[in-house]
Amino acid sequence: MTLATSAEVVLDHGTGAKLSQELIGEIVDLLGEAYLGEMEDSATLPLPGGRIAMTTDSFVVDPPFFGNGDIGKIAVCGTVNDLAVVGARPLYLTLGMIIEAGLPMERLRQVVTSVRDTALEAGVHVVCGDTKVVGRGEADKIFLNTAGVGVFEREPLRMRHVRPGDRVVLSGPIGNHTVHLLSIREGLGFETRVLSDCAPLNGMVDELLAAVPAGAVRSMRDVTRGGLAAVLHEYAAAVGRPVRFDQAALPVQFETRMATDMLGIDPIHTANEGCLALFVDPAAEADVLAALRAHRYGGHAVTIGEVGTDEGAGVFSRAEDGTAARVDELLGAELPRLC
Amino acid sequence: MTLATSAEVVLDHGTGAKLSQELIGEIVDLLGEAYLGEMEDSATLPLPGGRIAMTTDSFVVDPPFFGNGDIGKIAVCGTVNDLAVVGARPLYLTLGMIIEAGLPMERLRQVVTSVRDTALEAGVHVVCGDTKVVGRGEADKIFLNTAGVGVFEREPLRMRHVRPGDRVVLSGPIGNHTVHLLSIREGLGFETRVLSDCAPLNGMVDELLAAVPAGAVRSMRDVTRGGLAAVLHEYAAAVGRPVRFDQAALPVQFETRMATDMLGIDPIHTANEGCLALFVDPAAEADVLAALRAHRYGGHAVTIGEVGTDEGAGVFSRAEDGTAARVDELLGAELPRLC
Repeated sequence: MTLATSAEVVLDHGTGAKLSQELIGEIVDLLGEAYLGEMEDSATLPLPGGRIAMTTDSFVVDPPFFGNGDIGKIAVCGTVNDLAVVGARPLYLTLGMIIEAGLPMERLRQVVTSVRDTALEAGVHVVCGDTKVVGRGEADKIFLNTAGVGVFEREPLRMRHVRPGDRVVLSGPIGNHTVHLLSIREGLGFETRVLSDCAPLNGMVDELLAAVPAGAVRSMRDVTRGGLAAVLHEYAAAVGRPVRFDQAALPVQFETRMATDMLGIDPIHTANEGCLALFVDPAAEADVLAALRAHRYGGHAVTIGEVGTDEGAGVFSRAEDGTAARVDELLGAELPRLC
Repeated sequence: MTLATSAEVVLDHGTGAKLSQELIGEIVDLLGEAYLGEMEDSATLPLPGGRIAMTTDSFVVDPPFFGNGDIGKIAVCGTVNDLAVVGARPLYLTLGMIIEAGLPMERLRQVVTSVRDTALEAGVHVVCGDTKVVGRGEADKIFLNTAGVGVFEREPLRMRHVRPGDRVVLSGPIGNHTVHLLSIREGLGFETRVLSDCAPLNGMVDELLAAVPAGAVRSMRDVTRGGLAAVLHEYAAAVGRPVRFDQAALPVQFETRMATDMLGIDPIHTANEGCLALFVDPAAEADVLAALRAHRYGGHAVTIGEVGTDEGAGVFSRAEDGTAARVDELLGAELPRLC
């Protein structure tokens, strides 16, 4: 019984014996040139001296397979993007999988293939992995974990570099990933017109940072769980200044707005998988926008607001009539398992 | 509602908003000096140049809380040991948690505290983490993932360094971890007399490698999933020589043998969390045993067999009457969720 002949994942694929070995062997084969491990207990890897970046994320996205992606793509993008936004060049990924017994083997193949394709696009290697299988009902289909290591070839970008007056730029529309997944979950019918934005953004970040003077991009975050609101609150608190944005400037696709209105949620609270919030020196704003827009993942980049020069944290939304409303930090986003 | 005031984990602890932030803040507080992150998207870390080791493991142990440990301790030991056995000095760990909504907050605290204590014992730092919460019935209490980075201050140990005639040494008894957990799961009553061997072994490995000439320890593995049988099969296949061991030499605690006999399982197929199988230059065998026995985790170290000088892979068990039996590689270990 092998990955090729077994139609679904069984508990013994996770117990460390022969079936486990076969499963792992076929996963490594599927990863192809995206894999750089050696099948020892740890991978041994060259690394330039200096400083590294490390990050990890677990992925429990529901559904794990959706219109224009799957949990494998998200797992690579999430970790690659976390490394890229601090200014590191992503190099190595680990891949941990927790699989519910009964998962069709074809689905596992799909996940690994997505990991491979996304890793190749991002220019990173999977260097080691781990596969656990739990019984039916003990997990929900498949959970992934990726940890990543990157190297710094530039000064790290840090939240504390943000200054009063800095512009806040979004690299793309918000809300699409959330609407796409909720639409599939709830049968809303938007999923063919609103696609997930899931993408590895390290290439775009690299081109951006090469195009503008060092320090012009103070800091950035990928806008994932908690949405834009959570990111802006995090920066406002860290900098001790208000962050203000124009409601009308928010890039939200028409159908996405329809869906979020219908669902009674605000796009600023939605999770995304391919959108950056950047804090930018005002003098470099035009160059940053131009560099982002030149990349296929940044075509809709836009300035949405700025960091206030007055004291006090807080996030404020400006309406078109000029009135400002405080954006509360949600206690919980009430939208679980979007990543 | 905070970790201190909420009695259990709720879905909103995982959605990236305020409750998530509070949960993460309290987890970081609990980790104390075992934490070395910066609450950015990636941790930024110094690293000597040269080569690094990287590894990852997911942990789905059932039950996650047992007599002398818990999933937090296992998650640190598993990854630290995987780095140590290739000859690397473990430095940094990532910590990913997937939590089933409804987990008592006190249990989460216990896990994080165990992570902290074990990381401090092992001399490693947690540098970043991630917390996801899924609904009731979508996971089984708590799953962890740790990825680790270590540096090489010595030549990496590799399976391919093993030579015909090398001695096979076990650093401690086998079967205890498996019997401890199965006893709790099945209510067998052995769990107070048979404790899990779960331990971070990097300290012992470091003392061992410092005590013997370079190359004397060719390669080693921690004997986890799949048990001793899987490890010996892996080496026999890699080296292309038979590996033989004496049944009577296997270190198995009396009560453990009683339990495995009762359960109809062979200790060589049981998972462990604090036992090494070492392949050793015969000239250094006595020094290796002495170095291991001098450490509190290696008091029962013993030679169990050797790598044959004849051709052909395979694992063979020798009985006291001198007869040898081929040890088959199990298709599946049929004992899921022991790590």
